[in-house]
Formats: sequence, C-alpha cells, structure tokens
Amino acid sequence: MTEFELIARYFTRAPAAGGMVARGVGDDCAVLDLGDRWLAVTTDLLVEGRHFLPDAEPEALGHKALAVNLSDLAAAGAAPRCFFLALALPRADEAWLAAFSRGMLALADAHGCALAGGDTTRTAEGGALTICITAVGETPPGAALRRAGAGAGDDLWVSDEVGDAALALRAASVIPAQAGIQNGSRESLGSRLRGNDGMEEQVRQRLDRPQPRVALGLALRGLASSCIDVSDGLLGDLGHIRARSGVGAEVDWPAVPRSARLRAQPEALQLACALAGGDDYELLFTAPPERRAAVQAAGTTAGVAVTRIGRITAQPGCRVLDAQGNTIDTTALRSFDHFA
Amino acid sequence: MTEFELIARYFTRAPAAGGMVARGVGDDCAVLDLGDRWLAVTTDLLVEGRHFLPDAEPEALGHKALAVNLSDLAAAGAAPRCFFLALALPRADEAWLAAFSRGMLALADAHGCALAGGDTTRTAEGGALTICITAVGETPPGAALRRAGAGAGDDLWVSDEVGDAALALRAASVIPAQAGIQNGSRESLGSRLRGNDGMEEQVRQRLDRPQPRVALGLALRGLASSCIDVSDGLLGDLGHIRARSGVGAEVDWPAVPRSARLRAQPEALQLACALAGGDDYELLFTAPPERRAAVQAAGTTAGVAVTRIGRITAQPGCRVLDAQGNTIDTTALRSFDHFA
Repeated sequence: MTEFELIARYFTRAPAAGGMVARGVGDDCAVLDLGDRWLAVTTDLLVEGRHFLPDAEPEALGHKALAVNLSDLAAAGAAPRCFFLALALPRADEAWLAAFSRGMLALADAHGCALAGGDTTRTAEGGALTICITAVGETPPGAALRRAGAGAGDDLWVSDEVGDAALALRAASVIPAQAGIQNGSRESLGSRLRGNDGMEEQVRQRLDRPQPRVALGLALRGLASSCIDVSDGLLGDLGHIRARSGVGAEVDWPAVPRSARLRAQPEALQLACALAGGDDYELLFTAPPERRAAVQAAGTTAGVAVTRIGRITAQPGCRVLDAQGNTIDTTALRSFDHFA
Repeated sequence: MTEFELIARYFTRAPAAGGMVARGVGDDCAVLDLGDRWLAVTTDLLVEGRHFLPDAEPEALGHKALAVNLSDLAAAGAAPRCFFLALALPRADEAWLAAFSRGMLALADAHGCALAGGDTTRTAEGGALTICITAVGETPPGAALRRAGAGAGDDLWVSDEVGDAALALRAASVIPAQAGIQNGSRESLGSRLRGNDGMEEQVRQRLDRPQPRVALGLALRGLASSCIDVSDGLLGDLGHIRARSGVGAEVDWPAVPRSARLRAQPEALQLACALAGGDDYELLFTAPPERRAAVQAAGTTAGVAVTRIGRITAQPGCRVLDAQGNTIDTTALRSFDHFA
C-alpha cells in the first residue's frame, strides 16, 4: 500500500455540503471558504532520522521546516498569513532552540507570516525530534491554485532549476533511502560524483535552505491552470497533476532546467536527480499556450526563472522525450513514497 | 526551564498590528480575525510512550487525539469546523488505521468537524507513533473566551467532575511519570487503591474517552469572564488563568466535584487526582456572581453539570481551603510540566 493509497482509504472524505471546507484532502492545501475570504491551510510533519539527520544544523532546520509549508501555500497561490508550530523535543536544549527559532522566524518575517500558536512537548526517552507545522495563507475567493485543472494542450512549466537538492543528498551520502531511486539503480549510477570539489556546499544550500516560491505563486493566480510544488520528485508530482486533472503529459528532457553542477554529472544521475529527486520546492504548473508571455512576465515579477518543459496531453500517462523526440526509459526512477 | 518558560523564551511574539492574528501564543487557541468571522485554531502533538502507550487501543486513541483539540476549541467558546491530521507511523498497519480513523471520525462527525487535510509519513526505524492535530473553530467577532479576563470577586466554576482520569492512570499503573505528582509523594499515597473491583473500567473511560465540552463552551460565550480546559491539572490550569488575568484564587476543596469512586480513596490521593491529575478535559472558568443563574442555565442547556468551587481574589497566589476555611498544604502536588 502506497502512502497515497493509505491516505485515500482511511482519511479521504468529500467535504460536507454547506461546510467551511471548500477543498479537502488531495491538494497541497485545503481551502476554507469564508465567504469574502479564502484561507489555504497545509500541515507537514518532519521526523528526525526520516526527513533530517540528528545532527542537522538547527538554524537551517528551522528554515526548512517552515519553508516546506510556505511552498505548499505558494503552490496554492496563497499569501502566507500565520503558522502554528508543534514540537516534540528529546530535551530542552537552549542553544538548539535559539538557533532553530532564529532560522524559522527569519523566514517567517521575510514572508510576513506570524507565529500564532503551537504546542511543545517532550519525546519519550531516546525519541526522535518531531516538528509539525500548520501554515495558513489567504487568496481571494475562488483564486486558489490547485492540482486539478490542467487541460490537453496546456504548456508544462517549472520554476528555477530542479535536481540540486537530490544531488546534494548523494554528494553527502546522507539519508540514502530518501534519494528517490531504487537501491539497484543507485549502484549502477556510480557513487562517485564528478566535479565534487566545492560543489557540495553550493548544492547543499538547495537542500538545506529551499526558497519557497511564494511571490511566483501569487503572480500565477488567474494564469496557471494547475499547480503543485515539487517535493517528492518532478515526475511523481506531475503524476498528481495528471491524476487530479485526468490528463497525460510529455516532458522534454533537454528543456528541464538544471544547474551547471548537475549537468556535469552522468546523464543517468541527472535524470534521477532532476526528475525523481525530490526536495526541490519549485513550482510545477500548467497554463494555456496563449498565456506564455503572461507567465514569463509573472516569473519576472516574482524574480524567478520559469521554463517550459513540456505539454499536457489528452492521452493518459507520462512520457519523457529526448532531443530527438524519442522516449527515455524512466522506469528505474521512482518518486519518494513513504510506505512503498 | 519549564515548558512554559521555554515556549515564552523562543516562540512567543506579540501579534503584528494589522495582521490576521488577534491572539497568539498563550491561550488554548489562537484567534484569527477575519473581520466578520473569527477563527479559533489549536494544535496538539501526541507522542507514543509519552502521551499514550504503544498498545493503546487505536479506536480510543483516535477519539482522544481529536478530543483534546476539540476541548481547546470548547475553552475558547468556538464551534468546531474542521481539522488537519498529521501522522508519523512506524508501519502501515491497515487494521490499526481502520480502528484509529473510526474512533476519530466518529467524534468528528458528532461535532460537525470535517477532516480537511493532513500529512502522513513514516517514522524512522523503531520510531514512535506521533499524532499532530490542528483544529479550527469559529466564534462571532470578539466572542472567543480566553484565559485573561477573570476579575476579583468572580466565581470559579468547573464542569462535571475532575480526577477520575488521574485515578485511572494510577489504577492501571500506566505512564506513572504523567500521573502529575512527584515520585516521593506517590509513594506516600500508597499504591493500593480502595474499592478497585470494577472501578478501573469506569474511570478508564474518563481517561480514554474524554468528552470535549463543546456545547458548554458555546453556552458560556458572553457569560464567562475567563475559561481554560483542565488538561494539566486543575491548580496548574487555574495558574494560567491567574497569570493571564493578574489575579489570585481560592478553591473550596469540599466543593470540588468528584466521583463516588474518587471519594472512596484516601484524602491525599483525592487531592492529587482532582487538583493536579490532569487529563480531565473539563472547563474551568470564571464569571461574576450576578451571572450565577445564567451559568447554571448554560450548564443545563449543554447537558453538563457546572459547580462553583471558589472565587477569584485581588490578592495573588492560590489557596485551597478545607471545610473550616483553613488552608490545605498542596505543595506536594504538582501539575504536569513536560520539561520540569
């Protein structure tokens, strides 16, 4: 049973008619309809040893824990308003807490997102540090972006670059189970990365300090026909758009934006990192071709590059195409699924 | 450093002027001001081995995990609207999940509280099951109850009975660290409980299946001058009302409502369970004496007994008085503090 099947079976219910919940389980955010205002709400749970290492630098961890939630708000086109922090701590370590809150509140301040409340408790003896953040954003009524809505013929876009965070994971050889590809495949990719001198620190920033694309999400309201943030790998998250929209997709591999560092790696590793790596926190979205100039302008407004990387098809499924238009075999890649 | 000092030092900030957050960290719920509607939001984190045992019955656990959040909404006088569930699971156990969601969703349905979204992940190997729920309720603008507001001369009230949940913990000898009193004191109380035949199952329901006092919270809007739910022990939670309101209090011990089962125990154990036991999830609130009839009527409306157990004083501090008006020494009692 995959994570998605698990959620669907026991925790998915259609929102009750007449209730506050306009959209429930299945999007990056739930949407609460308050009449003249809509709230987008998302919750994420980060567990030590699963999502980060016990020796994770606390300031970066504070940043990232909030960033992944703000990225969900960005994918909904919602302006961050406030967040709630629940922490289970193995001990009350003041230096750790000071750095953690510094990293978290600096990002919160940068986005005008107030810490509104929370809960602090202690883990059982030897327990894992656990962080649960619930973030609240706002959109005008009806304006929230969602995974459903992509139509055949729409362009497929992604912001900035993808794959560096996954490359950082491989370079540091940390949390290999999260690297997004099967063990067998990983061996064949080779464990030595090319051009590793000084590279680790640069790509590490992508992994440790993701920048949620909040301004882009706001600029895409009324333009994007669907949107998701790339947290579990581009192809996996594209799968959510396809499933919710009832469409297929083609991805032009040469167009997928990658850093020079990633392009210096073997092709198979590039594919794995950029298409199935996860932890990118870029926006993957669709828009009709007639809005190309407007989408480019939205990227300029938001100060982040946006790149067309393919198209939505009526035919279901997903194909990744090389420069000659031939299908690349991506069966060895696999998005991260917590219960797979 | 106590839990409360820890929160205050690193995670308390005054809400920004002009922002959505009308009340932040420090009350049972944060309050979001949306103009013509107010939302009350609360988040709670429950950790296996700390808040419940690994063999906890999943249906009861699902009930209780949501109940503690609905109790926070009740303390704010908020009508439940929806909730978000984040789960870290050691494994994907279908039978467990089915029972857990059954218990949780039955309580949600009883209160018209929709499951709006969430996050499911896996713990690291051998990790502790962790449940984080964020619940959203609603009040008319300005109507949310809070901890601040108790005035000298106000009556002190509590709903139903207190102490049975703590008695159940002692009867079952589970999670002794949570029983709310110091180890030294516990020894002196004796480990054998009187009248244990069949008692365990009755009081166990109070521990496993707390009933959030949602209807009472709604009925107390406009009546109660302050309100809190008793989760960490009556005297400890009264301390929050005192601190936030800048007042003192006197508690008439003979008036504190206790079950016949608890009254059959030694006096010292009764004091420990009823005043410092925790896990009661009753409402502790204050109201001016001229509203006594209205408060009683609110209890009748809500179908739950309400009892006057003391008064608010201008003089700070808290005294527990016996039938003769003499102060009872409660220094051996102590509310639950996660980091004490």
